[in-house]
Amino acid sequence: METEGSGDRLAGDDVEELRGSLGEQQHRYLRLLADFENVRRRMAREHESARHEGRRDALLALLPALDTLERALAAGSADTPFYEGVVATHRLFLDTLRELGVEPIQSEGQSFDPNQHEAVATEPADDVEPGTVAREVRRGWRFGRELLRPAQVVVAARPEVAEPWP
Amino acid sequence: METEGSGDRLAGDDVEELRGSLGEQQHRYLRLLADFENVRRRMAREHESARHEGRRDALLALLPALDTLERALAAGSADTPFYEGVVATHRLFLDTLRELGVEPIQSEGQSFDPNQHEAVATEPADDVEPGTVAREVRRGWRFGRELLRPAQVVVAARPEVAEPWP
Repeated sequence: METEGSGDRLAGDDVEELRGSLGEQQHRYLRLLADFENVRRRMAREHESARHEGRRDALLALLPALDTLERALAAGSADTPFYEGVVATHRLFLDTLRELGVEPIQSEGQSFDPNQHEAVATEPADDVEPGTVAREVRRGWRFGRELLRPAQVVVAARPEVAEPWP
Repeated sequence: METEGSGDRLAGDDVEELRGSLGEQQHRYLRLLADFENVRRRMAREHESARHEGRRDALLALLPALDTLERALAAGSADTPFYEGVVATHRLFLDTLRELGVEPIQSEGQSFDPNQHEAVATEPADDVEPGTVAREVRRGWRFGRELLRPAQVVVAARPEVAEPWP
């Protein structure tokens, strides 16, 4: 009877312990599976944002070439055919930026907005409200819904506080 | 005796079955863990390549604007100050591309290489070896070690097989 009893108890302990281990192991598995899914989802999102960052880096780096082109165009030229060729380049550059999701920021005449404007100076203004952008010094750009580069602007001020630029 | 015997067998079966399930469950867990690590490693690599792709997309899209600029410059201008301004833009564009890892492909005088040249025509050539690039029609670009855009070229051929372009 004793042998039988201890044998039964032994088997019973084993079964209980094994059931516990099995439950625990199943729990660990499910937890790992959930972690796995989370990491997979997070990484898919990060993949998209890495692609976006790559575009952003390249576009931001090329804006100074566009600035130089715009400065050249602003000076004008008597050589109309050559000037027209450069105008075509400029238009194609802007069209391509637009297709890539890059749009210029409106500045002149707008209320100064620190989220997209960078004030480089103030100047006295009689005809516009103080706090309005009087002039744009360097064009600003948005990339989708984010800021690619702020516009550098001169802000209208009351005459006594104006600091001219440059 | 019969009850005891069947009781022992029952517990024994349970234990064996549970041990089997536990082993299997541990095995599944380890397999999932290995998969997890593989996916994590692969995704880290893909993150870097997504960034690279984003850059690549933006740069490739902007090459036609550079082509237009180069065509305008090739025509020349009598308005030297304006022309110089456009030359400065061009130089800045090329410098920026170089900084981003984009370099022009050498074509003229090189052996035709289908990995970086796209033949748009052939023309008779007496002074160069047939199979040599006689002229470049559109510049090609490399992005790091990969091809961004092949150079479009006219290849020197024996007079009897030449097909002029355009």
